[in-house]
Amino acid sequence: MDALRARLDKAATAATVAGVDALLITPGSDLRYLIGAGGSSFERLTCLVLPVGGAPVLVVPKLEQPGYAGVPTDELGVEVATWVDGEDPYALVKRALKGTGRLAVADMMPALHSLRLRDAIGGDQVLAGPVLRELRMRKDASEVAALRKAGAAIDRVHARVGEWLRPGRTEAEVGADIAAAIVAEGHELAEFVIVGSGPNGASPHHSLSDRVIEAGDVVVVDIGGPVAEGYNSDSTRTYVLGEPRDPDVWETYAVLQAAQQAAVDAVRPGVTCEAVDAAAREVIAEAGFGEYFVHRTGHGIGLDVHEEPYIVGGNDLPLEAGMAFSVEPGIYLPGRWGARIEDIVVATESGVESVNNRPHELVVLPA
Amino acid sequence: MDALRARLDKAATAATVAGVDALLITPGSDLRYLIGAGGSSFERLTCLVLPVGGAPVLVVPKLEQPGYAGVPTDELGVEVATWVDGEDPYALVKRALKGTGRLAVADMMPALHSLRLRDAIGGDQVLAGPVLRELRMRKDASEVAALRKAGAAIDRVHARVGEWLRPGRTEAEVGADIAAAIVAEGHELAEFVIVGSGPNGASPHHSLSDRVIEAGDVVVVDIGGPVAEGYNSDSTRTYVLGEPRDPDVWETYAVLQAAQQAAVDAVRPGVTCEAVDAAAREVIAEAGFGEYFVHRTGHGIGLDVHEEPYIVGGNDLPLEAGMAFSVEPGIYLPGRWGARIEDIVVATESGVESVNNRPHELVVLPA
Repeated sequence: MDALRARLDKAATAATVAGVDALLITPGSDLRYLIGAGGSSFERLTCLVLPVGGAPVLVVPKLEQPGYAGVPTDELGVEVATWVDGEDPYALVKRALKGTGRLAVADMMPALHSLRLRDAIGGDQVLAGPVLRELRMRKDASEVAALRKAGAAIDRVHARVGEWLRPGRTEAEVGADIAAAIVAEGHELAEFVIVGSGPNGASPHHSLSDRVIEAGDVVVVDIGGPVAEGYNSDSTRTYVLGEPRDPDVWETYAVLQAAQQAAVDAVRPGVTCEAVDAAAREVIAEAGFGEYFVHRTGHGIGLDVHEEPYIVGGNDLPLEAGMAFSVEPGIYLPGRWGARIEDIVVATESGVESVNNRPHELVVLPA
Repeated sequence: MDALRARLDKAATAATVAGVDALLITPGSDLRYLIGAGGSSFERLTCLVLPVGGAPVLVVPKLEQPGYAGVPTDELGVEVATWVDGEDPYALVKRALKGTGRLAVADMMPALHSLRLRDAIGGDQVLAGPVLRELRMRKDASEVAALRKAGAAIDRVHARVGEWLRPGRTEAEVGADIAAAIVAEGHELAEFVIVGSGPNGASPHHSLSDRVIEAGDVVVVDIGGPVAEGYNSDSTRTYVLGEPRDPDVWETYAVLQAAQQAAVDAVRPGVTCEAVDAAAREVIAEAGFGEYFVHRTGHGIGLDVHEEPYIVGGNDLPLEAGMAFSVEPGIYLPGRWGARIEDIVVATESGVESVNNRPHELVVLPA
């Protein structure tokens, strides 16, 4: 509770610094970060109104109020304003604000609400993301602990992949077993399961298909989900069933492994996000595979699987202790095979801590 | 494919009628309705640009392009414009537009994108929902067939609830079994599972808890999810374990059953949404339970679980053949018990068709 109270205070301070008059936060990870409950409504407006210098108000449909029963609104000083079908929730938001001005809306707020708020209230809407990311991307000790817990849970799943991944099974069959294990090993749900076998591994966002896995296939397995605290795991390992079919696999994979290690080794306070990206990219480019590394090196992670800071060219944000993100270079050879290695790391005062600790080598399973 | 082409044409016509210069559609049900693939990206912009009088352009991250492999873009005349990390996708949208003007953005578009589009392009943003609902709320034969398929699948689950719902088990345990059956009976996933036992049944949006179900409990079971075509089921039945603990259950439930039937009987072309709501509400109010029916009577359903038309006071939209929606009055006695009956119905030329066909009576299971 004290942690939530501190976050509300810090959010108000960050809003002031950003020249914003109020934060308007609809359900999602920002809401969970601020009051401990993320909500789930879509077409009925739920909105935490945080006016700078005023009292926070949670506008919520009476019907959905029970979903916020665990929020210590009294202790947090959050007033609750309920509404029922037929009433105008946008007027309640207007009433909770001191006036209009510069209103920062949650990045995830659907246009359904942001445009209706604009029409009801006026003012100048800006994104709340740049305000809240100043808080959210610096994880406190309890958040890092939750990321460690999630990392250990997904490591246990990777340790068991050999139970399910074998020739003759489809990616979808293997994926279903992995999804069950993600939950069994301590996640709330299997948020995503990628099993990219053979040529499918060369498509970075391939998820699952009915392709039957064959001996000699290289297989990318990228999996994760939230633990009870809401913080996510996300880890990729690459497997091969017996001897790889393509003779270039070992040499190419060694380049990838060196690139991933170079990026992790680059992480420490003061180093920019783009420098971490460049550390991986240079190793891959120097080996002649530059055009086959088609995405950024990583993304921040926390209550969202993808959040700030992004480890990408052009992002000159310097890392600070507590920033948590993926380091996940890949090499993708279209129509043939692909490989990726992904760990979640946290910048520390002295360098870097990885919350994933499975070996980085290509994992050879029985064919 | 012809159906999709017709939808793109009708969307452009509806946009013209609405005085809109272009539709900007990000991933979600609107995108699935228009091109057959709903996408899933969040922070990387995917956007179907539909300029009135111009060629449609799908702006998509190169990384996520494989997810649209099934879309017949050539036959639909949709140009594909890909981008990679570091490039500016908002500039691609601007290029795809003839100019600015009145830009209708998808209701579900996150502010992250709508505000960046506003800043990159200018123009006046309005909601695309009111434009597209003119198409989406009038289901064609294939859509009604998909709703029938979903309805039959969820009816099969309700027919089996007695296998799992019994005293001594928690709501969460029963819910997990029901969720598995929702998938086993033909859904893509269990989108929602509500098991509201005893006092929890009096909270309309309660989902699941660790409450142990007892003999004499009245239990609200509200379940559904999408079938492969993307169309959703949503059906509620109320169960009791042996003789109800509260002596008023039978009489009160009879009022609810009469109210639900009155609303279904009111459905035919030309009748307004609010008149259907009133038909249920009047029966409940006349019996003295008006204050315990705390939500609207229903919501449209299709690719979204909740969509237009809403069956609610103040909505004077006249029903037309092909409109599909829930009829789901409830009576909720705080701290004691609640009941709800929900069927999905489709307005026909001559009246109404229900896609759910389980009996409406309170279902008595062994205590």
